[in-house]
Amino acid sequence: MIVRDFNKLKDTDRSVSDARWNSVRMLLADDGMGFSFHITTLEAGSEHTFHYKHHFESVYCMSGKGSITDLATGETHEIKPGVMYALNLHDKHTLRAEEELVMACCFNPPVTGKEVHREDGSYAPVEELTD
Amino acid sequence: MIVRDFNKLKDTDRSVSDARWNSVRMLLADDGMGFSFHITTLEAGSEHTFHYKHHFESVYCMSGKGSITDLATGETHEIKPGVMYALNLHDKHTLRAEEELVMACCFNPPVTGKEVHREDGSYAPVEELTD
Repeated sequence: MIVRDFNKLKDTDRSVSDARWNSVRMLLADDGMGFSFHITTLEAGSEHTFHYKHHFESVYCMSGKGSITDLATGETHEIKPGVMYALNLHDKHTLRAEEELVMACCFNPPVTGKEVHREDGSYAPVEELTD
Repeated sequence: MIVRDFNKLKDTDRSVSDARWNSVRMLLADDGMGFSFHITTLEAGSEHTFHYKHHFESVYCMSGKGSITDLATGETHEIKPGVMYALNLHDKHTLRAEEELVMACCFNPPVTGKEVHREDGSYAPVEELTD
């Protein structure tokens, strides 16, 4: 059994930050669960465009307020506590945080922790990652 | 893109209850994500022994207070907001809710929604489920 505490991990190298977001990696590929699990915080007033071409991701809003736009359809959905979105079609999307958003995120395949967002908003597939 | 709201699903058949717990299935196997995602609420004062022999599960505490005992080692861990446990060894465990616990749970392989807890605390593997 693995037991980890977000409030301890957030001050370690399992906490990764980029432009106006932070992600604490509670579970990564090497934990062997077949998915990774992250607590991701997006700064109030920030906007993010992501496109996970090689991953499925679900995102559950625990606190905050914002919106998500599906860039294929143009449809926008409100994000508030209790709302989940799942990128079952690898949907390119723009996420906006009106207030700070705290989200529980699952990735399949699991993130290794070595990915960086590429210019197109994606993470590389596992086979393209190098040590 | 799938968008679902816990506060709407909790009054539908995606909300499943058993002895002193409730689980709202935000994502199930037929959503095609490769994992399922549930918001599970355990009543204050309740105790639960589970043994997912055929699934990996991670459980992140969003609110409440309790403890988990790994029945193989006898070790007990405090459960409070921010703490996650992951049953990477299909660990048989007892979960106690001192206060109502609200947990974000991921299962791999994904739960189909047709499982019931068997006497041994497990869910059947997918191949044993029948329509």
